[in-house]
Amino acid sequence: MRTYDCDGLTNFRQVPAAVVLPESASAVQQIVALCHQHRVPFVARGSGTGLSGGALPAEGGIVISLARLNRILEVDLANARVVVEPGVINAHVTARVAPYGYFYAPDPSSQSVCTIGGNVAENSGGAHCLKYGFTTTHVLAMDVVLPDGSLIHVGSATGDAPGYDLCGMFVGSEGTLGIATRIVLRIVRRPQTVRTMLAAFDSTDHAGQAVSDIIAAGIVPAAAEMMDRLSIAAAEAAVHAGYPQCDGLLLIELDGTEEEVDWLTRHVSDICRACGAWEIRIAHSDAERAAIWKGRKSAFAAVGRISPNYIVQDGVIPRTALPRVLREIQQLSAATGLRVANVFHAGDGNLHPLVLYDRRIEGQEQRAEELAGEILRICVRAGGSITGEHGVGIEKREFMPEMFAEPDLATMQRVRIAFDPLGLSNPGKVFPRPRLCAERQGKHEPHPIEVAGIAEYF
Amino acid sequence: MRTYDCDGLTNFRQVPAAVVLPESASAVQQIVALCHQHRVPFVARGSGTGLSGGALPAEGGIVISLARLNRILEVDLANARVVVEPGVINAHVTARVAPYGYFYAPDPSSQSVCTIGGNVAENSGGAHCLKYGFTTTHVLAMDVVLPDGSLIHVGSATGDAPGYDLCGMFVGSEGTLGIATRIVLRIVRRPQTVRTMLAAFDSTDHAGQAVSDIIAAGIVPAAAEMMDRLSIAAAEAAVHAGYPQCDGLLLIELDGTEEEVDWLTRHVSDICRACGAWEIRIAHSDAERAAIWKGRKSAFAAVGRISPNYIVQDGVIPRTALPRVLREIQQLSAATGLRVANVFHAGDGNLHPLVLYDRRIEGQEQRAEELAGEILRICVRAGGSITGEHGVGIEKREFMPEMFAEPDLATMQRVRIAFDPLGLSNPGKVFPRPRLCAERQGKHEPHPIEVAGIAEYF
Repeated sequence: MRTYDCDGLTNFRQVPAAVVLPESASAVQQIVALCHQHRVPFVARGSGTGLSGGALPAEGGIVISLARLNRILEVDLANARVVVEPGVINAHVTARVAPYGYFYAPDPSSQSVCTIGGNVAENSGGAHCLKYGFTTTHVLAMDVVLPDGSLIHVGSATGDAPGYDLCGMFVGSEGTLGIATRIVLRIVRRPQTVRTMLAAFDSTDHAGQAVSDIIAAGIVPAAAEMMDRLSIAAAEAAVHAGYPQCDGLLLIELDGTEEEVDWLTRHVSDICRACGAWEIRIAHSDAERAAIWKGRKSAFAAVGRISPNYIVQDGVIPRTALPRVLREIQQLSAATGLRVANVFHAGDGNLHPLVLYDRRIEGQEQRAEELAGEILRICVRAGGSITGEHGVGIEKREFMPEMFAEPDLATMQRVRIAFDPLGLSNPGKVFPRPRLCAERQGKHEPHPIEVAGIAEYF
Repeated sequence: MRTYDCDGLTNFRQVPAAVVLPESASAVQQIVALCHQHRVPFVARGSGTGLSGGALPAEGGIVISLARLNRILEVDLANARVVVEPGVINAHVTARVAPYGYFYAPDPSSQSVCTIGGNVAENSGGAHCLKYGFTTTHVLAMDVVLPDGSLIHVGSATGDAPGYDLCGMFVGSEGTLGIATRIVLRIVRRPQTVRTMLAAFDSTDHAGQAVSDIIAAGIVPAAAEMMDRLSIAAAEAAVHAGYPQCDGLLLIELDGTEEEVDWLTRHVSDICRACGAWEIRIAHSDAERAAIWKGRKSAFAAVGRISPNYIVQDGVIPRTALPRVLREIQQLSAATGLRVANVFHAGDGNLHPLVLYDRRIEGQEQRAEELAGEILRICVRAGGSITGEHGVGIEKREFMPEMFAEPDLATMQRVRIAFDPLGLSNPGKVFPRPRLCAERQGKHEPHPIEVAGIAEYF
């Protein structure tokens, strides 16, 4: 059970009361019905790669591992759909349909191990979501076990269901509304040509300007990723990607027909040069392309090569605010004496600042956490969001009031109660801990309060 | 007040108790708060072009017209966003940003008169949603007046908000969750080249096969519309579009760079010919392109030229089921002696069968309604949906149980109560009228029941 005491956010741990590994949807229903009957909180878990503590068990609660619900149930190429169980590994979907010229678009860096169920819970993104959209764009319908053990069907395999879009709302609900046991995914035709290029700039400002100009020119690259000098150094130390040493590196992928990609490559190269790129490299083989991506995809883990400890942050800003926000992060870094490496989905404005620290130096962990929090506040002030793709989980629930007013959060809580009146499904996540009763006077509607993981009306 | 007794679905009428025309979001809040205080049902209304009775007033209820909240509040080209009030006309958004090379993608046929608020309520589609997505893809954030008069903010202008996706769920909720008073829209860069073409086939089967083959080849046209002989005849009678006389006409639009569109045109023409197209016409000027679209966009109204009365149906099927479903509709038409014209968004599998009848002939209206209903059942049996873009409204609420099981609908009802515990916001829409209490025994959760437009727990 100790194996299940945390997910990818390892500084929160709780040994579960039990771990169950059902092998069918009906077994999931039975387990959840028992939890409901005995008021036992539960959390569903895929591969445990989440970075916000979404799969952390509640105190006294159980873990329902979906690792054994790992079958691809149906492949319908004519309608570009695949039906999977939640424990199917993300990359296995693409592997299954690749021989027919299709792929599953959302590609978190952890795609070789993370599950579709976890992707649904977190509305996972990835480098190629700039062009193809997040998980929510690719989930058409689901079977969902509600926290009372009943089974509902949400969405429509044809992509357009009447009534409320419960399917869209369930995606990204971080396990708090129930457990998806069958998921209908949209797959995408693989483009004829994919071309990957690198552009080296003297600053992230210049690289950021290039991204803005590319998109303002009406071009939507398949991916537009940025790395700063420190994250390049980390990637080099770990996987020897052969990146140019520079202060702002853009990794751009273009796809489409051969003619289109040729045209796009010329146009994007011109824009990069106009913004100060002093080196542009184009991958000429699959091996070169893979090498470029390897550096980027391993960047988080690679930071372990240059720092004993680090926090992976995840925030979103409008693309136009990129230069200003990066300068503010730089100033905070200088003021606190903590290094910050920046890796990001530049096209989406989704930053992943990595705050480097050494736990052995007294007070540094706390300073790093404060700095990471301050970065989020900068994102919110710039009109952005406290998370782009890692979720709120347990890590960021106290930041929710920075983005949402009390009535916004109260409405979400009432929706939660519509699914889970007893608060058994992944309690303690997403929402800030409630304030004291005395602060709530004057409210007429019932509000949930979480007591030892159980939401109750009061 | 008689002007407001119905929307585009004119066979349901109810004169409202009052019509109010607020000029600001705070006035909307005050009106809704008064309705809440006095338990008066209300319905928000844009231009009243809806086809499912969504803007029909409840008995004793008021109409809140948003026609005067018609300002475009902000244009942010760098981030490709426009902020509007709900009464802004759809086409005015594109008109405002067109000089800068942008457009607002969802384009219902009524776009020259319908409002963004109505589009949000119905999750409106349109010919170009095949490539660009429905309204839900283009709404980033909203201010929403809840049915108790409080104001919440949903979504995020950067497109990625933590917590539940209430913004996505509100889109398409048909006025039952509250009133949007400020809407942040995504705009899209206008492609360099747009090319419109017609292909004439000997049957809708062949035309449908061409659409399937085009999409299976990895091509997503900007639009792929189909018309059968009867709807062509109607369009010709009304606007003299100059269409070829045939049994299956495809209208395809391709967009992108000049090179890409050239390549796509060749490829799509080849596929059409392989599927039996005997004439392919390409528009060579804006005037020719406009003439092609005029016939399609006026097709519904044009049917009035060939039949005294008609029902516009709206259903969705998987693209692969197109030939089979069209044959079944044909058989039903032959069996009942009622003509059915077919106009559809073929790429989406979104059918618009038009059931032609003459009210003056006794029993024919009822037979037409039964036939229209039977067509929906065919769509559901084929794995599709009872509405693609016109909404459930009052027209199709009794069909909801054909698509959803009781627990699915009960979950939606509980979500509705999270927003609107008194059931004042557009009551009587979307959900089927509840069964008798005696049929509900054995249920433990509270279920809403609608009594004279008021939802209550029991």
